[in-house]
Amino acid sequence: MTFNTAAAVLDWLGVIVFAISGALVGSRKQMDIVGFALMGTVTGVGGGSIRDVLLGKSPVFWVQEPAYLIVCVLVSASVFFAAHLPQSRYRLLLWFDAVGLALFAVTGAERAMLAGAGATAAVVMGVITATFGGVIRDVLGAEMPVVLSREVYVTAALCGAALFVALSLAGLPREISVLLGFGAGLLVRGAALHWGWSLPRYRGRPGRTLEEIEQLD
Amino acid sequence: MTFNTAAAVLDWLGVIVFAISGALVGSRKQMDIVGFALMGTVTGVGGGSIRDVLLGKSPVFWVQEPAYLIVCVLVSASVFFAAHLPQSRYRLLLWFDAVGLALFAVTGAERAMLAGAGATAAVVMGVITATFGGVIRDVLGAEMPVVLSREVYVTAALCGAALFVALSLAGLPREISVLLGFGAGLLVRGAALHWGWSLPRYRGRPGRTLEEIEQLD
Amino acid sequence: MTFNTAAAVLDWLGVIVFAISGALVGSRKQMDIVGFALMGTVTGVGGGSIRDVLLGKSPVFWVQEPAYLIVCVLVSASVFFAAHLPQSRYRLLLWFDAVGLALFAVTGAERAMLAGAGATAAVVMGVITATFGGVIRDVLGAEMPVVLSREVYVTAALCGAALFVALSLAGLPREISVLLGFGAGLLVRGAALHWGWSLPRYRGRPGRTLEEIEQLD
Repeated sequence: MTFNTAAAVLDWLGVIVFAISGALVGSRKQMDIVGFALMGTVTGVGGGSIRDVLLGKSPVFWVQEPAYLIVCVLVSASVFFAAHLPQSRYRLLLWFDAVGLALFAVTGAERAMLAGAGATAAVVMGVITATFGGVIRDVLGAEMPVVLSREVYVTAALCGAALFVALSLAGLPREISVLLGFGAGLLVRGAALHWGWSLPRYRGRPGRTLEEIEQLD
Repeated sequence: MTFNTAAAVLDWLGVIVFAISGALVGSRKQMDIVGFALMGTVTGVGGGSIRDVLLGKSPVFWVQEPAYLIVCVLVSASVFFAAHLPQSRYRLLLWFDAVGLALFAVTGAERAMLAGAGATAAVVMGVITATFGGVIRDVLGAEMPVVLSREVYVTAALCGAALFVALSLAGLPREISVLLGFGAGLLVRGAALHWGWSLPRYRGRPGRTLEEIEQLD
Repeated sequence: MTFNTAAAVLDWLGVIVFAISGALVGSRKQMDIVGFALMGTVTGVGGGSIRDVLLGKSPVFWVQEPAYLIVCVLVSASVFFAAHLPQSRYRLLLWFDAVGLALFAVTGAERAMLAGAGATAAVVMGVITATFGGVIRDVLGAEMPVVLSREVYVTAALCGAALFVALSLAGLPREISVLLGFGAGLLVRGAALHWGWSLPRYRGRPGRTLEEIEQLD
C-alpha cells in the first residue's frame, strides 16, 4: 500500500504539472477559460491515456477516476487567473513539462512492466508516455513540438525510464527505483534547461524546403 | 428501440456532417478525389473511434459496421463535385463542424455513461469525442486547429454534454435529454458563429515567438 | 507456417523502412541521436500500433515483441551516421515511405480480416495503417504531411489494400494475394514518384487564408 500510495502520488503530480503546462499554452494563445480547461485536461491525462490504450488497459484511468479530470480543470482555471505573474511563461512551461516528463517516464515504464512487458518495451512505453502528453499539447496549441527542442529532452525521459527499469530488474525496492528513476530524468532535463546541455546533433545539412527540392528536380 | 434508433440517427448525422467538413478541407487544399475520401472518412469516424478506444470498446464501431465507411466515401465524392457551389467553403465547413460538434458531444457522453463512467468522465468524453474529429482533420489538412478559434467552440461542446448528462441523471427520458443536449450545443456554437460570441479571453500578453524568447535569455 | 513467416517478413520490412523514413526526418531537423531513435521507433511501430488499437488487439504488438523496438533503434542509429550519403534525403525518405506504405496497406488489411472485419473495413484499415505512421512522423517533425502530396499517395495504399482483399476473397492463396497487393501498391506509388503521376485534383479555387476570410466578412 505504501508503494501504491507513492505511485499514485507521482501519477497525480505528473497529471497536475502537465495540466499546468497545457494551460500555459492556452495563455500564450489567449484562449478563453474553457480552452484553458481543455488544454490542461488533455495535456494532463493525454500521456497516461495513450499508455493505457497501448497496454490494453481500457477504459482508460480517468473514466473510473474522474477526480483526475476535476483537478485538471481546477488547475487550469487557476492558471487562467495567475498566468500573468511569471515573467516568462514559456520558461515556466518548460520546467513544468520537465517534471511531468520525468514522472511519466517512470510511471509509464512501471505500468508496462506490471502489464507483463519486458525491459525494452517498458523503457519505450515510459518514453512514449512522457513525451506524447506534450506532443498533443503542442499540436492542439500549434506550438513547435518540444521533442524538436535543441536541449536534451527525449534523452532525459530515456535515462529516467531506463534507470528505473534497470534498478527494478536488479531487485531494488520499488520506492527507491521509482525515486531514483524520477530523479535521474529530472536532473538530466533540468540540467539541460539550466546549462543548455545538448547531445551532438546531426551535423549534415539541414533539410531543404519543398520549394528548393522542386527547383533541383 | 425507439431510443436506439434515435441515437443511431444522431450518430449517423454526426458522421456525415463531419465527413463533409473533412472533404471541404480536401477541397481547400485541392486534393484529388481519394484524398477527399480519406479526409472525409477519417474526420467522420475519427471522433467516435477515439471514444471507442478510450472506453475500451474495440474493435471500433466501423469495423463491425462498414456502412459508416461507405457513406463517408460517397459523401466525400459528392463534395468533390459540388464544393465550388458555396460562396465560402470555410464558413460552410464551420457550420457542418458545428452540427457534428453538438451531435458528438451528446453521443460521446452517452456512450461513456453506458460504459459505466460517472458524470464528470462522461462530460469530458463528450467534449473529447466532439472536438477530436476536427483536430485530426485540421492536423491532416495543415489547417489552423478549430479549437484555437476565437468564437466559443469547446464551450459549446461542454454545454451540450453537461446538459445531456444533467438531464439524464435527473431521470428525464433519454430522447428528451439527447435532443435538449444537442440543441444546447448547436445553439451555443451557432450563436457564436452568427454573432461572433466569445468568452472573455486571457487578457495577459500573447506568447512570444521562440526567437524573441532566445534574445531575452 | 510459410504464410506466417511471409507475413512476418513483410511486417518487419514495413517497420524497418518506416523507421528509416522517420530517422531521415530526424536528420532533416538536425536532431541528436536519441531524437533519431524516437522518430524512427515511433514511425516504425506507429501505423501498426494504431491498427492494433482500432482492432482491439492490445497490448499492441511491440509490447510482446520488443525485437521490433531494438531493430528500430539500431536502424535509426545507422541513419544518424549515414544520412549525409544520399544526395537528396527527402527523395530517399519518399521512397522508403513508399515501400512502407505498400507493405502496411496489405498487412493492415489482412490483420483486419483476421479480426473478423468485412471487405470495406479491411480496406480502410489497410489505408489507415499505411498512412498514419507517416502522419505521426510528419506531425512530430513539423513536416508537411505526405498525405497532402501532389502525387498519388493514398490512392496507392487504396489500390494495394483493395487488390489484396479482392484476391483473398476470391480464394487465392494468401502468399499470392499478399505479394500482388504489395506489388500493386508499390507500383502505383513508385510510378507516381518517378513520373509525377497524379489524379485530377479539385479544380475549384484553393482555400483562402483566415485573414482573407475575415476581411470579406
